[in-house]
Amino acid sequence: MNNPRPLHFEVTARDPHSRARAGTLRLADGRSVQTPGFMPVGTLAAVKGLDLRDLEELGVRILISNLYHLMLRPGVEVVEALGGIRSFMGGFQGVVATDSGGFQVYRLGDLRRVTDEGVTFRSPYDGREIHLTPERVVDLQQRLGSDLWMMLDEPSPYPVTHAEARRQLARTHQWAERARIHYDRSPRAGALFGIVQGSVYEDLREASARFVASLDVHGFAIGGLALGEPSVERNRVLEVVVPLLPEDRPRYVMGVGYPEDLVEAVERGVDLFDCVLPTRNARKGTLFTREGRINLRNARYREDPRPLDPSCACPVCQRYSRAYLRHLLRAGEPAAPRLLTLHNLYFYLSLMEEMRAAIRNGTFQTWKQRFPRGRWSKEEQHVGPPV
Amino acid sequence: MNNPRPLHFEVTARDPHSRARAGTLRLADGRSVQTPGFMPVGTLAAVKGLDLRDLEELGVRILISNLYHLMLRPGVEVVEALGGIRSFMGGFQGVVATDSGGFQVYRLGDLRRVTDEGVTFRSPYDGREIHLTPERVVDLQQRLGSDLWMMLDEPSPYPVTHAEARRQLARTHQWAERARIHYDRSPRAGALFGIVQGSVYEDLREASARFVASLDVHGFAIGGLALGEPSVERNRVLEVVVPLLPEDRPRYVMGVGYPEDLVEAVERGVDLFDCVLPTRNARKGTLFTREGRINLRNARYREDPRPLDPSCACPVCQRYSRAYLRHLLRAGEPAAPRLLTLHNLYFYLSLMEEMRAAIRNGTFQTWKQRFPRGRWSKEEQHVGPPV
Repeated sequence: MNNPRPLHFEVTARDPHSRARAGTLRLADGRSVQTPGFMPVGTLAAVKGLDLRDLEELGVRILISNLYHLMLRPGVEVVEALGGIRSFMGGFQGVVATDSGGFQVYRLGDLRRVTDEGVTFRSPYDGREIHLTPERVVDLQQRLGSDLWMMLDEPSPYPVTHAEARRQLARTHQWAERARIHYDRSPRAGALFGIVQGSVYEDLREASARFVASLDVHGFAIGGLALGEPSVERNRVLEVVVPLLPEDRPRYVMGVGYPEDLVEAVERGVDLFDCVLPTRNARKGTLFTREGRINLRNARYREDPRPLDPSCACPVCQRYSRAYLRHLLRAGEPAAPRLLTLHNLYFYLSLMEEMRAAIRNGTFQTWKQRFPRGRWSKEEQHVGPPV
Repeated sequence: MNNPRPLHFEVTARDPHSRARAGTLRLADGRSVQTPGFMPVGTLAAVKGLDLRDLEELGVRILISNLYHLMLRPGVEVVEALGGIRSFMGGFQGVVATDSGGFQVYRLGDLRRVTDEGVTFRSPYDGREIHLTPERVVDLQQRLGSDLWMMLDEPSPYPVTHAEARRQLARTHQWAERARIHYDRSPRAGALFGIVQGSVYEDLREASARFVASLDVHGFAIGGLALGEPSVERNRVLEVVVPLLPEDRPRYVMGVGYPEDLVEAVERGVDLFDCVLPTRNARKGTLFTREGRINLRNARYREDPRPLDPSCACPVCQRYSRAYLRHLLRAGEPAAPRLLTLHNLYFYLSLMEEMRAAIRNGTFQTWKQRFPRGRWSKEEQHVGPPV
């Protein structure tokens, strides 16, 4: 690469009994992120319901936005005119990753057309035709001014036949090469992440990991997971892919997951995550607590004076009762999504912090043994005694 | 009244050239509010989009909630079980007024039945029949634990015939007497406000003011305004009513209004206001600035890097551009209602503070002469040069 390295990654501690590791991502301008880290989803240059001060108070140092969505609204040219995404957001001091939107385009179904050249689709908002190529996706992320860039890929659905997954993977790899070449042609500010695909097929995942590892990119995304596959399949994919990726660059599993999924992936050597679960669930009234998931719409919380999680130190649990938050949620009060999102994100960020500390202290295995498996991916738990 | 006086009102300064006055409302427990004051509307025990810390940071010392709405959701018994409305809200340290909901019931049209006894209506949410009487409205506000209580009234629509308004006023007065008697029968924590009605008819307004003034209540609400009547009519009503109300108790005009309306009413001796304009308009994208109203959805703000109001010191104007806020609004991002509401409420609260300072400094008349009339009640202004 002909430009100064935009991203440095340093492994600062390793669990001696697994691939779990703690590290620091550092950009050329000094901004840094501790890993393993969770990226809240800020699809449209905002974490839904929160403002920048909320993010600062939660200690959010990195988030992920979405090129596809920003192209549609407000338009890349608007973000660019306002000085790039961090400036557009009001001066975010952390790191902004952007997904290419390959996954979103794939979900458009009949509304999109995929060729070897790229993808074409119509805006669901104004019907205008939009064309994305691997090269254009690099250019547009440059214009957005984000820090970590994802390549355009063609994700496989789940389930998918081996033949279909192989065909999609071949195109993903072609596009990756084009993106890599295009990236190299001019000085670029962002760090480029390659994306490993291959569905749940070990041979394809292995081939993909070897291919992407050869690309001399700054980081590795592992896509095509969290699409409904059993966690045992997902863990197997990570066990195949991660050992083939160079140790000196970060690994990011896209779209994962429940708290227990994050723990399993960290143990298998993953450094970065993003997932809509804490934020989307919050808006629906599903809250993560130390005891499990609770559905705040449940009538049992109608007059419950306790905080969402009695053991939580977040600002929402310091102040508000389940009864009040349930009322705001049910009444459609616009304060509800914000307060519930604050709590759920605090939960996820605290979990990551615990894992980082355990890895640094050499206690990750004992920490993990005490970690309650299957507590959050299951349906509603009854939390605490009835009132 | 047989209980310790729940509300003290002290006039601390008067404009020598008008009825404008500054004062302090003080509750028995020491909580106080400076007047003229504006009460943000928190219909369902929340100012839409804001949480308690937002209110504290805005300096909100008083807000108004609504018995009718709280009865429907979450139910008075829930608020009561959580320790009353201020505790339910998470520990609001300010003063909470509650409207009876007479106005909301009146707007139900065919869904309600009004008799001399009271009003009966069906819940729009679960169809259950609800019966309100003047006595029950007092009891329910006691159970809500609010501080300033409005009586049940039968508001007149606008326009309305003299005969119809007179009939409605007679019932409102009967109900006021019943409420007053009921209030006196047992120790009550809240301060009781009588409501002056009578539409735009001077004889009815005069009779109503004299009647309500005779009731030995703690404060006086002036209802039936801000229903679409011309401001000249509204001002005339205030000029008839206010001089007939005892000087030693606060006067509250319900539902008014635009910034210029507040100034006109303060000059005519009004102490308290509530209005959904700043909050509801904010959610629709109509913002109040020193230069006038702006409609943030307008395409001219698409790439506008300026704050909503370049001369505003609110936390939103300190940080966010019109372009970003417009994007959040148009995309339906849940952060938008909060940020825009913060700005509009800051504008209204600052206006009240300016008026209080001008009255105290003896400069209200000069202040008012410099105040730009008609700047906010008109349609969209173009603010600042095009970008």
